[in-house]
Amino acid sequence: MNFKGSHILSVSQFDRDAIERVFNVAHQMLPYAKRQKRTTVLNGAILGNLFFEPSTRTRVSFGTAFNLLGGEVRETTGLSNSALAKGESLYDTARVLSGYSDIIAMRHPDSGSVAEFAQGSRIPVINGGDGANEHPTQALLDLYTIQKELLDHGSSIDGMHIAMIGDLKYGRTVHSLSKLLCLFNNVRFTLISPKELAMPTYIIDAIENAGHKYTITHQFEGSVDADICYQTRIQEERFPSQEEANQYRGKFRLNQQIYTKHFQSKTVIMHPLPRDSRAEANELDNDLNLNPNLAIFRQTDNGVLVRMALFAMTLGVENIVTQFDREVLWHVNS
Amino acid sequence: MNFKGSHILSVSQFDRDAIERVFNVAHQMLPYAKRQKRTTVLNGAILGNLFFEPSTRTRVSFGTAFNLLGGEVRETTGLSNSALAKGESLYDTARVLSGYSDIIAMRHPDSGSVAEFAQGSRIPVINGGDGANEHPTQALLDLYTIQKELLDHGSSIDGMHIAMIGDLKYGRTVHSLSKLLCLFNNVRFTLISPKELAMPTYIIDAIENAGHKYTITHQFEGSVDADICYQTRIQEERFPSQEEANQYRGKFRLNQQIYTKHFQSKTVIMHPLPRDSRAEANELDNDLNLNPNLAIFRQTDNGVLVRMALFAMTLGVENIVTQFDREVLWHVNS
Amino acid sequence: MNFKGSHILSVSQFDRDAIERVFNVAHQMLPYAKRQKRTTVLNGAILGNLFFEPSTRTRVSFGTAFNLLGGEVRETTGLSNSALAKGESLYDTARVLSGYSDIIAMRHPDSGSVAEFAQGSRIPVINGGDGANEHPTQALLDLYTIQKELLDHGSSIDGMHIAMIGDLKYGRTVHSLSKLLCLFNNVRFTLISPKELAMPTYIIDAIENAGHKYTITHQFEGSVDADICYQTRIQEERFPSQEEANQYRGKFRLNQQIYTKHFQSKTVIMHPLPRDSRAEANELDNDLNLNPNLAIFRQTDNGVLVRMALFAMTLGVENIVTQFDREVLWHVNS
Repeated sequence: MNFKGSHILSVSQFDRDAIERVFNVAHQMLPYAKRQKRTTVLNGAILGNLFFEPSTRTRVSFGTAFNLLGGEVRETTGLSNSALAKGESLYDTARVLSGYSDIIAMRHPDSGSVAEFAQGSRIPVINGGDGANEHPTQALLDLYTIQKELLDHGSSIDGMHIAMIGDLKYGRTVHSLSKLLCLFNNVRFTLISPKELAMPTYIIDAIENAGHKYTITHQFEGSVDADICYQTRIQEERFPSQEEANQYRGKFRLNQQIYTKHFQSKTVIMHPLPRDSRAEANELDNDLNLNPNLAIFRQTDNGVLVRMALFAMTLGVENIVTQFDREVLWHVNS
Repeated sequence: MNFKGSHILSVSQFDRDAIERVFNVAHQMLPYAKRQKRTTVLNGAILGNLFFEPSTRTRVSFGTAFNLLGGEVRETTGLSNSALAKGESLYDTARVLSGYSDIIAMRHPDSGSVAEFAQGSRIPVINGGDGANEHPTQALLDLYTIQKELLDHGSSIDGMHIAMIGDLKYGRTVHSLSKLLCLFNNVRFTLISPKELAMPTYIIDAIENAGHKYTITHQFEGSVDADICYQTRIQEERFPSQEEANQYRGKFRLNQQIYTKHFQSKTVIMHPLPRDSRAEANELDNDLNLNPNLAIFRQTDNGVLVRMALFAMTLGVENIVTQFDREVLWHVNS
Repeated sequence: MNFKGSHILSVSQFDRDAIERVFNVAHQMLPYAKRQKRTTVLNGAILGNLFFEPSTRTRVSFGTAFNLLGGEVRETTGLSNSALAKGESLYDTARVLSGYSDIIAMRHPDSGSVAEFAQGSRIPVINGGDGANEHPTQALLDLYTIQKELLDHGSSIDGMHIAMIGDLKYGRTVHSLSKLLCLFNNVRFTLISPKELAMPTYIIDAIENAGHKYTITHQFEGSVDADICYQTRIQEERFPSQEEANQYRGKFRLNQQIYTKHFQSKTVIMHPLPRDSRAEANELDNDLNLNPNLAIFRQTDNGVLVRMALFAMTLGVENIVTQFDREVLWHVNS
């Protein structure tokens, strides 16, 4: 895969080599993201950050990643006032807006819209989420986090065991992550969901074709020797009836007690965020906040690294970042 | 006209000399806009980009133009949450906000509002559109595009033939463009519109007073040997009745077949954008997208150049831009 | 008080020494804010400007202050589309967003929300207003303005006489300002408000405990030899009934005639802005606009200085700002 000048639209563009190259560059971005070093390699470059569907964290993460490379950000949020809402085609919008920046990150509520936009764009487009379809940078940051967490434990993605919990039918993140994991070897999947919200067959098929092993269950049971526990939210409106929802209510939540009962003490806890802290949802309890294996905020931190890597590679500067190092002067806690 | 420190509020501020100076500077901005060169002449300067009426393309174009000169952008969009909506006067808003930046670009839904704001401002204000009144940077980018396209054909604005099509009564852009063309010599106008949406008398008078020639028709007919075909949208609600609207429906649209039938093969097609791609509107068909004379996206590209020129001239740095050249490192397709 | 790495949440954090240090740094920021000098001390630093409750002037003032120190700004406005609105806890929001920037300025409609957010944040948080609770940078810019205006008159905060007028019950700004004034010596307060909107007892107690003198009245009367006249708006819906409101209507407005009748010719006029210019409100008449003692726009200008000071001190760069001076090239009127 040649990154320079390419669109990043789908996880299906990535082979294992491409992933490893992104992760290597992401790792090199760490001192810049931690403000130990400062680079200005993208001085003068402009990111068009087009969030036709609002999203605070993904939008800010893309913008921050570009700033950390020295570039500027021109931002658009919301769809209601845009020309798109007044009948302009995605092609026209893309032709026009791609004349205003060097690269575009785009979110849009409609499946396929980002790819359609990319066809009209004169500059690289990175998909920041197109409805139910794809959110490739989320999948990459999830996988990067898994690799990094496992490395800290002395292991690797090859041969690992991942438990995926919650709404596996509609959860875009677990589908994309599963596809990426099919590029690796000997992964074990434990898929825990309500029957009505089980992992789709085409993902199961991909897992099988990759030679991976999997177990499907509809409740937490016994000891799950997973390296990674990837938790997702269940929205009750996904069930065919409220009776179904009631039957499962609270059975796929994770708190410290359930964690201790079913998982190993080293199992890493992940979640795509945001998690709903309201009592009726609460898929990941706040009593896990002090658990050192709770990796959910390391995931969002890693998102900056992965997006920095994609920007640098797509704009072809990943090998010269360090040439533009400057001193960092200000105070940072982290 | 002295640009340094001046407001840019109306096309009526410009004489031919001023226009030519802006266009010369705009032309010098091309290597920066194309990322062949990078300047930081406005390093540390701040644009207050105040879009009290939302507009993605004009807002981003202003912001990009300022970034490309090395400056920063602080942006405000929407009116509903502003102090203006809570009874603050435009004078107060201007006094306050002009303390936060070096120059302001402003759009507002009310005619005359930007000029009123400018009276309270301590820094230059560029009108980014004040309702039905003025949008001078659109008129300048239209005229700049005409000059550039004609130059490519070996001709010039003096002596050219322009066809204006569609809603010539309410179309702000064709009025402003016509006023600017009155500063040039021997322009021929062919004005094609429904009877109810004909060019207003005061514009016709200005065209006559400038010694230009014009023809008024209410349909495409015969061969129009225009150098420029400037197409605008007709909104059906502009007609006195739906019956009137129905009578004209589809008669002022342009597609490849109509273009071939009525225009020369070199006629340049322009439109202020956005164009409505929905079937019931469709004033400029997508089958023209591959026509090399379709200049609509060159118009928006040129808008960046013209806005860069106005910023540089208003802030008095147009002669030193090149002193702050830096290398460009990242990949650009265009 | 140690600023480096600290949150700025409340005026109660400040003692007199801390205030004087902030004001000294703010004073040193003047040549940068006036574009006589340019610094890039915060080059590469990112401000997370989180305005979950919209506010044009405070938001832009924070952003401008950060830009003037050479930093970048990533902005979020509105609450409705945020994860907070979808049930995410302030803790989670803070943990995530504090991974995207070096410092955060935050406004939120709920009292106490900014402090709660700060507990989850890994970087310093500056309170930009949390509902009815606190808006410490407004209080600091008010006090800084008072000091500066009095210095121009050869006097100082110690020993001054301030008249506070209007809604003293609900006016957050007069409460915070009063608390800060309790750190100084021998201040005289003249408190002029409708009976129903009088200064709360706990503020009066603080004024007494500080050894200050005060007078309470319910109308303008006689000659008020105040150095400062701090005017606030009265919103009629604050009264228990429309009859009460009618009784006071127009009695706490200030115009040139009332000013001349009751105040000294040197009395400085302040207001937290925005002022409502509509006839039924009009707490500060436009006929005062040419009065040289009208300090309301000097207040907002000073807000940039105070915010620059707080950013520099919180990030620990206040002593090296001048080491990063550059030439300023562009034109400024002011």
